[in-house]
Amino acid sequence: MRYELYYWPTIQGRGEFVRLALEQGGADYLDVARTSRGMAAMNRMLREATGSRPPFAPPFLKFGKVVVSQTANILLSLGPRLGLAPKDAASRHFVNGVQLTIADLVAEAHDTHHPVAVSLYYARQKKEAKRRAKEFREQRMPKYLGYFERIVAGNKGVVAGRAISYADLSLFQVVEGLRYAFPRTMKALERSHRRLVALHDRVAELPRIAAYLASERRLPFNEDGIFRRYPELDAEARRS
Amino acid sequence: MRYELYYWPTIQGRGEFVRLALEQGGADYLDVARTSRGMAAMNRMLREATGSRPPFAPPFLKFGKVVVSQTANILLSLGPRLGLAPKDAASRHFVNGVQLTIADLVAEAHDTHHPVAVSLYYARQKKEAKRRAKEFREQRMPKYLGYFERIVAGNKGVVAGRAISYADLSLFQVVEGLRYAFPRTMKALERSHRRLVALHDRVAELPRIAAYLASERRLPFNEDGIFRRYPELDAEARRS
Repeated sequence: MRYELYYWPTIQGRGEFVRLALEQGGADYLDVARTSRGMAAMNRMLREATGSRPPFAPPFLKFGKVVVSQTANILLSLGPRLGLAPKDAASRHFVNGVQLTIADLVAEAHDTHHPVAVSLYYARQKKEAKRRAKEFREQRMPKYLGYFERIVAGNKGVVAGRAISYADLSLFQVVEGLRYAFPRTMKALERSHRRLVALHDRVAELPRIAAYLASERRLPFNEDGIFRRYPELDAEARRS
Repeated sequence: MRYELYYWPTIQGRGEFVRLALEQGGADYLDVARTSRGMAAMNRMLREATGSRPPFAPPFLKFGKVVVSQTANILLSLGPRLGLAPKDAASRHFVNGVQLTIADLVAEAHDTHHPVAVSLYYARQKKEAKRRAKEFREQRMPKYLGYFERIVAGNKGVVAGRAISYADLSLFQVVEGLRYAFPRTMKALERSHRRLVALHDRVAELPRIAAYLASERRLPFNEDGIFRRYPELDAEARRS
């Protein structure tokens, strides 16, 4: 099966959660918008080619005649095909619930730099961003990371079952993204979330993931993506 | 099968999307937190009773030994059991994608009155709320509603298949909520989204939904929920 991923070509963003699954699953895939004329193809898919079943926004994935959109939905669909989902229905629903919680965290991480309007530049909402980022660092990050830690600690190091699932790959990406955007906050939080960090490290060392991370297919984090390094939004350095 | 819904007892909120499905599906269910000692039971489920598979937050649904959390995940699980999902896998993935897009809209509607911090009162973020609500009304609402209109118009009046699915019930609730929170904006937008409004009206007239809406089980909208009526966040009345 050949997969076509449609996502913005210059950022990791939400598409990265799908890329990680495709890579670890050894899938034959094309990252369409990163090819020549790929952006035009993506825009055509959004506007016309999908009839009464359009995606709302990238990422979306085409395989065979089907187009699946929304990150968690793509992973729900891909997981079993790529050997990245547990076998029983209850575990699959649990993994999907965790993935949706990751999606909520990702949306909140985005809103730390865009609390007022997606359509306005960061510079136009910097003051509000500082207030929102403070709430995110002090209330929301500990709540989310504590939740993931509890799950992973309670299940011998992974989200569900005994093998790596797509939600484990996504938790790797959450740690990566938060380290990039909030390095000082993460340095403090990681001490009390060791099982989550251990899962991150284990994913990073999976041969296919390690090869992907070392390749040009892995885009660097940057200030157009979801996780952005704006030092003024991270915690103050601790005074000794 | 007996279902136990766990959700805040005084608001429609995200739980309402689940309540509508349970009602239309004729399910035997208990709205636990609305019973005596129900809130204590909900808090116990969040903290202890669910072991290494905890929900992150309400709503969550218990049936048999399984606890499913995240609204769209609950509906994905309930839909086929209650005859509220299409039969083929591709259509089910499409419906799930639409439901996740509704979840995004709901989160953005919430953030119109809480753009800075969930933990702060509205009064502490009113100025920011005005800016965010303007963006929501002028950019986001037309984009979301236009998307739903395109889908419903392209598929003879419902999201997928020929019968009412849980995503159709959720679109009814989206129209209800937006009418409550942004009456002036909706009055203007509904003119160009007639198929979506027709779907809303059709759902309202389903005998089980009509009976539910007329019952005390249907909580009224209020200013603790997701859709809140703060006139200053709605559009200015048109001057004639």
